[in-house]
Amino acid sequence: MKKSLGAKIIVGATPVWIVGTYDAAGKPNIMTAAWAGVCCSEPPCVAVSLRKATYSYGSIIQRKAFTVNVPSAQYLREADYAGIASGKDIDKFAKMKFTPVKGEFVDAPYIQEFPLVIECKLLHTIEIGLHTQFIGEIMDVKAEEEILGDKQLPLQEKINQFVFSPGTRTYYNVGEFLEKAFSAGKEFGK
Amino acid sequence: MKKSLGAKIIVGATPVWIVGTYDAAGKPNIMTAAWAGVCCSEPPCVAVSLRKATYSYGSIIQRKAFTVNVPSAQYLREADYAGIASGKDIDKFAKMKFTPVKGEFVDAPYIQEFPLVIECKLLHTIEIGLHTQFIGEIMDVKAEEEILGDKQLPLQEKINQFVFSPGTRTYYNVGEFLEKAFSAGKEFGK
Repeated sequence: MKKSLGAKIIVGATPVWIVGTYDAAGKPNIMTAAWAGVCCSEPPCVAVSLRKATYSYGSIIQRKAFTVNVPSAQYLREADYAGIASGKDIDKFAKMKFTPVKGEFVDAPYIQEFPLVIECKLLHTIEIGLHTQFIGEIMDVKAEEEILGDKQLPLQEKINQFVFSPGTRTYYNVGEFLEKAFSAGKEFGK
Repeated sequence: MKKSLGAKIIVGATPVWIVGTYDAAGKPNIMTAAWAGVCCSEPPCVAVSLRKATYSYGSIIQRKAFTVNVPSAQYLREADYAGIASGKDIDKFAKMKFTPVKGEFVDAPYIQEFPLVIECKLLHTIEIGLHTQFIGEIMDVKAEEEILGDKQLPLQEKINQFVFSPGTRTYYNVGEFLEKAFSAGKEFGK
């Protein structure tokens, strides 16, 4: 039996991404976003949604760029903190002892310590309501060499990622390999 | 050392959602989308991106509604298949022995067998490139009673969800509980 839970954000797991920006003065900042995902293959784009009240909001509008930094589980506490504290008040890079590196292709900093980072150029700004969605074109992806597998692709096991469950406001790890995509279903289709 | 991988969709894990629609004739259809996520808290909204070539695309444009169905890992093969086959050619509900149920609030069907389903009304259509992003307002969330915990919230463990890793085109399960959000970082901030 299904029970109606109302018009709430209860969707299972969402990614936890840390958005990197420079403010007007060039100070690097980060904030955690879980309202985020991929939104287009060509051009390759991701979307992150931020509230106007965040310090990062103005930085993205001004610099027309941001980075997405994918944290490994060892940085869970830092990621949680980066979603609580505001860059208005605190130098989060310094507080967390993260090293900001200027993007190679965009005017935004990434976190040197993270295994997987993405440089994005702002393409679209969509006003939805409490959140504004920023669609960024992926200009480059950078990964630590030690997480790369055979085909020079990051292995999910080595990213050691975690996800957020908004209903219960809890974090879970990304666990074990299950199946190859675009393959597991082929047998089913026969 | 970080290695540049180019402008590719390598972002770690994305959710795997199955989008439910009615076509012009009222035939229920589903397709799997991994370019998807939450995009606003108020109104509560999700975004799913589909290619114009998909059969579901026209259905969403016409009916201005879709459902998001969150599969448990037991339906991984079906979910993979629903991302390969087209509703133009095949009755995917029948093929997978899924039961379509008309949404209570929107003109789209959900999958009765799935633990967690979301009814969405189309709010915005964003043309990005190969993919079009549909932003849907969550009108209701429905969950199987057996997956609900103490606070009548679905437990991530019982959704038994899996995620997609686009770089390696592989599926992983959502594993074990790590920490409470908006809590793990507080200690860090002190």
